[in-house]
Amino acid sequence: MKELFGSPGRVSGFGLRVGQFVFAAASIGVMVSARGFFNSTAFCYLIASMGLQVLWSFGLACLDLHSLRSKRNLQNPVLVSLFVVGDWVTSILSLAAACASGGVTVLYSRDLNYCKQPPYFPCSRFKISIVLAFISWSLLAISSHVMFWLLANV
Amino acid sequence: MKELFGSPGRVSGFGLRVGQFVFAAASIGVMVSARGFFNSTAFCYLIASMGLQVLWSFGLACLDLHSLRSKRNLQNPVLVSLFVVGDWVTSILSLAAACASGGVTVLYSRDLNYCKQPPYFPCSRFKISIVLAFISWSLLAISSHVMFWLLANV
Repeated sequence: MKELFGSPGRVSGFGLRVGQFVFAAASIGVMVSARGFFNSTAFCYLIASMGLQVLWSFGLACLDLHSLRSKRNLQNPVLVSLFVVGDWVTSILSLAAACASGGVTVLYSRDLNYCKQPPYFPCSRFKISIVLAFISWSLLAISSHVMFWLLANV
Repeated sequence: MKELFGSPGRVSGFGLRVGQFVFAAASIGVMVSARGFFNSTAFCYLIASMGLQVLWSFGLACLDLHSLRSKRNLQNPVLVSLFVVGDWVTSILSLAAACASGGVTVLYSRDLNYCKQPPYFPCSRFKISIVLAFISWSLLAISSHVMFWLLANV
């Protein structure tokens, strides 16, 4: 298998996983701190989806760290297939959650004007949380594409 | 290059493009026929995004048909790279639009209860349009993955 930026068991791959984990956790933290987030199903789904991403990325970051320390090669077809499926499922769920929340936030702030009128939702917090979710998703998208490329080159 | 299901210039590829085109056009039609869709930015974005998908898929369907008739091979690296970029951009925009609209529809129907109380939005039409957009996106996702796989195997 080729050695690409972001491959499993490389420093760049480990960095991507840590980035995904940190941004997803930050997104959850900001959303939970926003008053009234539970009024929208989309925001609850964003928290659930980012929670899944935190678990997945943390697990793979640990695996990458173990591989870096023990110099074990993680690039065998079975493991890469597993990473591809997991990455794609998490990636699609994260993008769906971020976009659904984005749609609701735009509705609140532009169409219903709920940010400057009662019930005065903290839209800026919603927006920060969604931007963090998008950053986390974009890092995951890089990992997913690298994994798919590796699998296609087996 | 390998010959895969859904490759450009094959009957399966042409079928996928026609499916994407038909479902995206149907999604636009149903959404436009729903009263009050313009109250939400997400629904307008869905129409714009499905419009782009209609144009892209129609163009590629014509190219596939031309290739099928003239027996010309479309699988050269430059063309496939172009298809990959176009497919991925359209695919991400379509998924984002479908999810944003889905988030708003769930907010209307479950959280704000706007479907059974004033302003009585036609939520079933919104839902049908979003389901059609998701079907169109899933067909486009198959095409995108096939293209990426072909490019990785150049």
